[in-house]
Amino acid sequence: MTDLLSNLLTPDDVKALDTGQLEELCGEIRTALVRYGKEYGGHVGSNLGLVEACVALHVVFSSPLDKIVFDVSHQSYVHKMLTGRARAFTQAELFGTATGFTNPAESEHDHFVLGHTGTAISLACGLAKMRDMVRATGGEPTTDNVIAVIGDGALSSGEAFEGLNNLAEQGGNLIVILNDNEMSITGNHGGMYGTLARMRASGGDCPDNLFRAFGLDYRYVEDGNDVHAMVRALAALKGTDRPVVLHIHTTKGLGLDDEDAAHGIRAGHCEANHWQDPLSEEGRPLGARKHYGRLAMDSLAARFAQEPGLVVISPATPGSNGITPEFRAAAGAHYVDTGITEEHAVAFASGLARAGGRPVVATSATFFQRTIDQVQQEVCLNDTPVTLLSFGGGMSDADNTHSGVFDLALFSNIPGLLCLAPTSRRMFLDMLAWATGPDNTHPVFLRVPGAAILAGERDGSLDPDVTVSPQATDADAPWLGYRMAHEGKDVAVLGLGDAFPMALGLARELDATLLDPLQCSALDEATLRALAGRHHVVVTLEDGQLEGGWGEKVTAFYANAGLNMRVLNFGAAKEFTDRVPLAELHERYGMTRGLMLARVRGALAR
Amino acid sequence: MTDLLSNLLTPDDVKALDTGQLEELCGEIRTALVRYGKEYGGHVGSNLGLVEACVALHVVFSSPLDKIVFDVSHQSYVHKMLTGRARAFTQAELFGTATGFTNPAESEHDHFVLGHTGTAISLACGLAKMRDMVRATGGEPTTDNVIAVIGDGALSSGEAFEGLNNLAEQGGNLIVILNDNEMSITGNHGGMYGTLARMRASGGDCPDNLFRAFGLDYRYVEDGNDVHAMVRALAALKGTDRPVVLHIHTTKGLGLDDEDAAHGIRAGHCEANHWQDPLSEEGRPLGARKHYGRLAMDSLAARFAQEPGLVVISPATPGSNGITPEFRAAAGAHYVDTGITEEHAVAFASGLARAGGRPVVATSATFFQRTIDQVQQEVCLNDTPVTLLSFGGGMSDADNTHSGVFDLALFSNIPGLLCLAPTSRRMFLDMLAWATGPDNTHPVFLRVPGAAILAGERDGSLDPDVTVSPQATDADAPWLGYRMAHEGKDVAVLGLGDAFPMALGLARELDATLLDPLQCSALDEATLRALAGRHHVVVTLEDGQLEGGWGEKVTAFYANAGLNMRVLNFGAAKEFTDRVPLAELHERYGMTRGLMLARVRGALAR
Repeated sequence: MTDLLSNLLTPDDVKALDTGQLEELCGEIRTALVRYGKEYGGHVGSNLGLVEACVALHVVFSSPLDKIVFDVSHQSYVHKMLTGRARAFTQAELFGTATGFTNPAESEHDHFVLGHTGTAISLACGLAKMRDMVRATGGEPTTDNVIAVIGDGALSSGEAFEGLNNLAEQGGNLIVILNDNEMSITGNHGGMYGTLARMRASGGDCPDNLFRAFGLDYRYVEDGNDVHAMVRALAALKGTDRPVVLHIHTTKGLGLDDEDAAHGIRAGHCEANHWQDPLSEEGRPLGARKHYGRLAMDSLAARFAQEPGLVVISPATPGSNGITPEFRAAAGAHYVDTGITEEHAVAFASGLARAGGRPVVATSATFFQRTIDQVQQEVCLNDTPVTLLSFGGGMSDADNTHSGVFDLALFSNIPGLLCLAPTSRRMFLDMLAWATGPDNTHPVFLRVPGAAILAGERDGSLDPDVTVSPQATDADAPWLGYRMAHEGKDVAVLGLGDAFPMALGLARELDATLLDPLQCSALDEATLRALAGRHHVVVTLEDGQLEGGWGEKVTAFYANAGLNMRVLNFGAAKEFTDRVPLAELHERYGMTRGLMLARVRGALAR
Repeated sequence: MTDLLSNLLTPDDVKALDTGQLEELCGEIRTALVRYGKEYGGHVGSNLGLVEACVALHVVFSSPLDKIVFDVSHQSYVHKMLTGRARAFTQAELFGTATGFTNPAESEHDHFVLGHTGTAISLACGLAKMRDMVRATGGEPTTDNVIAVIGDGALSSGEAFEGLNNLAEQGGNLIVILNDNEMSITGNHGGMYGTLARMRASGGDCPDNLFRAFGLDYRYVEDGNDVHAMVRALAALKGTDRPVVLHIHTTKGLGLDDEDAAHGIRAGHCEANHWQDPLSEEGRPLGARKHYGRLAMDSLAARFAQEPGLVVISPATPGSNGITPEFRAAAGAHYVDTGITEEHAVAFASGLARAGGRPVVATSATFFQRTIDQVQQEVCLNDTPVTLLSFGGGMSDADNTHSGVFDLALFSNIPGLLCLAPTSRRMFLDMLAWATGPDNTHPVFLRVPGAAILAGERDGSLDPDVTVSPQATDADAPWLGYRMAHEGKDVAVLGLGDAFPMALGLARELDATLLDPLQCSALDEATLRALAGRHHVVVTLEDGQLEGGWGEKVTAFYANAGLNMRVLNFGAAKEFTDRVPLAELHERYGMTRGLMLARVRGALAR
């Protein structure tokens, strides 16, 4: 058995291989990817489908002079293996030393840190534009060919179409590789997929070509997993003086083996091989997203028969949020997968709500970021009862492209949006029922409880049935009054949402008053004023960025009201973090028990 | 001369007209629109083009059971005239009593408050979905036909494509009217416009139909300004059981008269008739956007010959921001109009910057909102030297869909983004030169000075040449140190950006220290600490929303540092405002001189 892969240190080593060795190399890569997926996890499916295309790219083009931009870049593992980072995927002790996305800090062959959808064509246009501007003045650009690689799922993103539309007008050399594996994260959704199917069936020669409609040249490769066919197709386009879309047909998950199949993970199947969890995780309890997501979906499903307007909308991210295939099948028309289109999903929801429906848009906090404008304009300005169910908010060891730490600072400052941060399973479900029920007629951002709350509910330190009726807090403004969890003295600790478990521990040590604010879009000024009588220090804890966040508002309230209260705010710094363990973040932000106690005691001693 | 228009109180009155009267009605409407544009201003061009289509819509369909959603809704004047609001456009004393956009508070025939681009198809999908969900359970929906009206310019927006793609999959009755007047705000930009031209030239029968490529049915009407043709086309589609795109060819500004022509405002010309300023404004001094925008463009244009990578990018909003036709013509490839695609524009800029270019993305604060995700991910996480030139930020009497009051709270909390808020013409140009020059390698959000600064520079109360060298403030972190404008005592007033003129007045009354923070992305902690020695009260003034904004951060700094300082924050409340005079907003937010003085003196007296 040969070992071509380990000996590849640069793309030149790929070029130096005999044509006959390319298939062998693809085989080695595929074997390595399958093992990597099982032992470490990752976006294995799309990478398996792109093995031959990536090998062919590095045979035909000369990176980094020729620049490849991967959309989302979750499918860049093979590119990484061919650009000096093979061992990060072949040697177990080095797994994880290459990130799951492209990263210029890691290699001169990576041009952007990416993780959100639909941006590659736009970014590639920028690279090509600079090349052309330098050339026009007789200079020597640092870029020759520019290649953008985008999947058929990612193509549903509106920004990708903005890029395609601008590309034809810009002109010049730019090759868009459409990696069509007939799948998104789950199935594809949208009218253009019928067209892509006809384009595949006709060998690229059917009427109403989507890319020609944008003014672009177009080529088709039926067997995108034939490395020789890919080399030929790319060689023919190298040096093109005008933009072209190369539509290649690949098989997601190609090469998955019998062991995978035994776990239901097969080539050509969506979702199961999109993100391959290490098989060893089987049988372990669900994480917070799936745990609370399933409870939420179960609670909604029970109402579908009676409520025609109750509709769950997922911009292509169901599985990781507990929206199971079983739920979807049972939900029928009550579930809509809009493709990877957060913006459409939110505006669509507002339309549904305006007509009397009760839509729930469910996706990750990091992906909701793309909807700030739609949430502000289409939802909040229109005051439609849309519920935004946000998963994965708060601090975590996530990579820097998928952090949930920014959501509250982004959404809690939007006028007219009630941002709920439940602290128990029951409270979460009560809030969801209320937000989508007849007593609410306004927009709601509901942050799904995270790992800290789930851990507490599992180990018994938190009561999963703690709740409060919305009217009990404030009859006119449900949920706006803070929940008193414990009456103590001297110090009042306010623990918002996922920071509540941490606040609970701190309050116990200090015999402090403990408050659960329930929400972060308006201050309970009466309660804050009342605290001033019997407390010297108010401590706010939030699982999110301090700047622009919630604690600063509490501080500003006391200052502007002229109340004599020392306030301490705990939360995340304004920074990007990349796979930093949560404990390390808490240490960095002064949020360990010891550091918090020391600060509070210091404030008390003054 | 007849007067059909004044007698139209409901859409039923339109239906009651003889076929022969329809052209007469269109003529009356057109005459009224031209007069309205001259005397009051407004988006007259697109409305003039849509007269026949809107009349035909109300002849054929029965609003509000049949629901029409206008994209952006700047072209809904004729619809408003036909749904009981004619006098708001015909009687000078009532001009302005109907808003410039649809508004459910105004009429049951308006379904959404809209002002941003590309959302109508998504919203219409939501209305149609609810209808279909109710029907499926045997209920009686409150909606029959759903019609979305979108212009060819607006179609460049990615969200519109997300909508088109989902529409085919959703199925059922929904008619998209593509109002193709061969123009956007200025010219159209993008590959799809070549296709639209071929579709027009072929009577709708050319290859590579953009809408069929999304799986949609398609019809074409060459003379969209023939009311009878429009009635026939719409009647044929009424009750359709599947989505269809009706592509109509209209003339923007049709009916503009000789007086308009004398001012260069003609039918079939872009930009000049997009927004028709009252002719009486001719000869008056430029507003802040155009004034500072032109200065900015002049300063950049002088560098184009030497700097191939210096590129101004406008997502289709040049004219209102001082990016004149003359500038564009001279800039050549240094100017890119991306169509109405804020997201592409920002990602494109990041690509250009990554390759060594120095892009400047210029648009309105309210439209930058759509790029939060791209600014955070593609620009800031990638730390590319993109300059975002934001016009129209801050409080104003704008309508509720175009408020600039949210920009600082949205952008200043993004990690890695320097948010500059200049307080003079010279400082603005220095900041722009620095941001796009060799000394800066990071992303910059630069807020163009507003009306308060321009007024001060014009009346001599502000020195337009005040500036500070970036290094002088902090050599390692240019612009991060606050500028001391006046050393006073007891009170320190910090006036951010456009709030500086107000701060200046307040500080003079109090003989207070006056600071110009220059930026709002990081606190100058050394200066804030130093203030603590000689001042009892710190006052922050910002021209933006307090919640999530800048002043709260100053307050939180003093609180968490344990410094004994009374802090008062002045800024806008978290709310939507609709055409509220600025003076009224200042009164409401306690930002008149008298209210501020009273609060500060109250704090000093404690």
